[in-house]
Amino acid sequence: MNALRAHAAAHLTEHIDLLDGLVRLPSVAAQGQGLDETATAVCGLFEAAGGTAEILRLPGAAPAVLAEFTGRSDRTLLFYDHYDVQPAEPLDEWTVPPFQVTVRDGRIYGRGTSDNKGDLVTRVAALRALRDTSGGLPCRVLFLVEGEEEIGSVHFDSYVAALRDRLRADACVWEYGDRDPAGRMNVIAGVKGICYVELELTAASRDLHSSLGALVEGAATRLAWAVAGLRDATGRILIPGFYDRVTPPRAKAVAATREVPFEEGQMQMHVGVRGFIGGRTGGDALRALLFEPTCTVCGLEAGYTGGGMKTVLPRRARAKIDFRLVPDQDPEEIVRLLRAHLDRAGFADCAIKPLGGERAFQTDLSHPFVRTVVDAVRQSTGRETVLLPTSAGTGPMYPLGDLLGVPILSIGSGYWGCNAHAPDEHIRVDDFEETIVMIAHLLERFALES
Amino acid sequence: MNALRAHAAAHLTEHIDLLDGLVRLPSVAAQGQGLDETATAVCGLFEAAGGTAEILRLPGAAPAVLAEFTGRSDRTLLFYDHYDVQPAEPLDEWTVPPFQVTVRDGRIYGRGTSDNKGDLVTRVAALRALRDTSGGLPCRVLFLVEGEEEIGSVHFDSYVAALRDRLRADACVWEYGDRDPAGRMNVIAGVKGICYVELELTAASRDLHSSLGALVEGAATRLAWAVAGLRDATGRILIPGFYDRVTPPRAKAVAATREVPFEEGQMQMHVGVRGFIGGRTGGDALRALLFEPTCTVCGLEAGYTGGGMKTVLPRRARAKIDFRLVPDQDPEEIVRLLRAHLDRAGFADCAIKPLGGERAFQTDLSHPFVRTVVDAVRQSTGRETVLLPTSAGTGPMYPLGDLLGVPILSIGSGYWGCNAHAPDEHIRVDDFEETIVMIAHLLERFALES
Repeated sequence: MNALRAHAAAHLTEHIDLLDGLVRLPSVAAQGQGLDETATAVCGLFEAAGGTAEILRLPGAAPAVLAEFTGRSDRTLLFYDHYDVQPAEPLDEWTVPPFQVTVRDGRIYGRGTSDNKGDLVTRVAALRALRDTSGGLPCRVLFLVEGEEEIGSVHFDSYVAALRDRLRADACVWEYGDRDPAGRMNVIAGVKGICYVELELTAASRDLHSSLGALVEGAATRLAWAVAGLRDATGRILIPGFYDRVTPPRAKAVAATREVPFEEGQMQMHVGVRGFIGGRTGGDALRALLFEPTCTVCGLEAGYTGGGMKTVLPRRARAKIDFRLVPDQDPEEIVRLLRAHLDRAGFADCAIKPLGGERAFQTDLSHPFVRTVVDAVRQSTGRETVLLPTSAGTGPMYPLGDLLGVPILSIGSGYWGCNAHAPDEHIRVDDFEETIVMIAHLLERFALES
Repeated sequence: MNALRAHAAAHLTEHIDLLDGLVRLPSVAAQGQGLDETATAVCGLFEAAGGTAEILRLPGAAPAVLAEFTGRSDRTLLFYDHYDVQPAEPLDEWTVPPFQVTVRDGRIYGRGTSDNKGDLVTRVAALRALRDTSGGLPCRVLFLVEGEEEIGSVHFDSYVAALRDRLRADACVWEYGDRDPAGRMNVIAGVKGICYVELELTAASRDLHSSLGALVEGAATRLAWAVAGLRDATGRILIPGFYDRVTPPRAKAVAATREVPFEEGQMQMHVGVRGFIGGRTGGDALRALLFEPTCTVCGLEAGYTGGGMKTVLPRRARAKIDFRLVPDQDPEEIVRLLRAHLDRAGFADCAIKPLGGERAFQTDLSHPFVRTVVDAVRQSTGRETVLLPTSAGTGPMYPLGDLLGVPILSIGSGYWGCNAHAPDEHIRVDDFEETIVMIAHLLERFALES
């Protein structure tokens, strides 16, 4: 491991430069920007590290990249990453340019540094470290890198189906990594699902003078009513049938949460709130975060939003709504339930535009790969390790996990304060370097398993 | 009157050019644009018509213009107008450039043509017609033209107080005119008040990843709840105390509404709705429009509103809310009641920013000036005339009416389909010409009263 550490230290600047090269490509999936050129750059990264790589294109989809690295053993570890990023808006809240790397105060800033271009670079860097220090890789490695993760991986199941014979692997390491405020490393064994929709109400044939408000119902007021009726202040979602398919978490998953240190005060201070939804505290809050579905309003737009007053009755109003799902909720069914709920509540004229849907997935914590990852993390980083049965976030684990039947775990270069999806996204330089060694060491241990 | 008609016809192009000159000055009060230069242009208009004019400036206020024209009688008619306009947004819904006059299909398009630069030009044109055809004016005329009408006339009462000795008049003609779909002329004897506020909720110290939505309440969801609780679907405002000071309309005002032809089907077709709030129809709908206070959401803004999906928990959300008031509601008290209501409903952290407040005013319909105006309109235009005890809209009649104790009536160049406050605002060329003659004739009749 010392040789790996020395390699990571010696090539740190070079690897940050590789990351800068990716961050400079503004691959915002929501806006369809820079996806082709980023996929090409990712291919180049793999080829430069000694692998073979191929750009795959399904009709109407952002390209995906499949890469293969041969190794001394036939055991195969599959890495899942994505090269797309969230939009950088609101731009005026960034203190650095979003689409280039800025290294400042031990941090590497830029859109995608944490989610998930930083992880991708540490993984490639780990392969280079292994090759340079031991002449090759201890096992076979695959990468599947998609370009639509931030818009709900809309074509990922099609890519997985098309590639099923080439994706066979014994285990999978997922994008995303997390160190908690106490410096512990989270090993994350699942994801929530998502159902993301846009609601749109049209109230009149044009914007009207608001003096007509005694007679004509505006779109904005009705949107507020429709949105307000989706969830109550305890977090309970008010759509009939919404909870019908929820499968309670496995006993082992619930038990694992009892080992998870959850510092609610620290989290509240970090995000700037005084309490949690429904007054949840301690383990209840943690289990809500991991095991309960959510309904969050991500955006509202209606009428005049500029300075001062404009007395207008808006003809149109829109909301973006994010439902996070748990096993075994089905995003398509959630859309149908939402439709029925809005119809019953008097909003039959409210259009629902589904923008993304994924199912939840949780790895069985009794699989031996779980132990391998936890041990590799602990030994390479010296950090205490926390096993989380699932993330509160979402990713397309379900198509891969369902197809391959293999365990999937997330470890990576991020930390609790990295502002993923927000202005001033960043990772820490030390974590970046540490992660390269950690991934290399995991590959060594994984190769020894039978 | 034939000489007046001939003058209006002969100088039509010239008067449209005068209007074009004003429309080209984008005097959007909400954005603080072009106000000084527009006030200067208005002064020039009065001086060119033979009056004396002065720009008045109170600290922090848009300038106002006071103009005086001497006449053969000492009776004084005061015209109230404003030179500011609504913002032109949404720009992509205009079919002509908003800040210049476009004459097309018998219509004069441009922001402010209807509200209220068109009226201002017809009034000045009427004075020119009288002077050119009879060598002078039959009575004394004052103009008070402010630049903050579209943002709630925030300094108008201060201007009125400062000018009280110079504003003495026997009657007042207000901005704004309206011809209904059957071609009848509305004579409008009052206005509603307004209380316009911006609500702002801040939920966290920054935008967060929406996966935290199981624990952290976002600003957008809470804003939807706060806004949804302001009013019900029958139009009833749910703020305790909101109706306490409402004075029911005078019997003569209610009686006047029975003479008002109200074609609800035509109005619904025009604005593109199938029914009115609370299922109101006929005279009930008309009386709601004129005599009931309202609560209208003019704008909503939170989180991500661009294309596709962004999974963000917005830190901040804003709503613009327009309450229309009736006699004797007080906008400052409405803000206090709203504050208490939000506090009780769990939104003590919701900031209220008052953006404009005005009280309602209704002229006593038994004043002889009402008859004079109705007769002058009928005789000059040949139109059937409808006396409306109040408009559903708002203007700062209260400070003038309260100070001077004179009747105030609205007549002007607009019509029912003129898209005031909306894209493609316009007036009709024929109405514009007709209004010049109508105002000139009114001045002749008014001068004969004792």
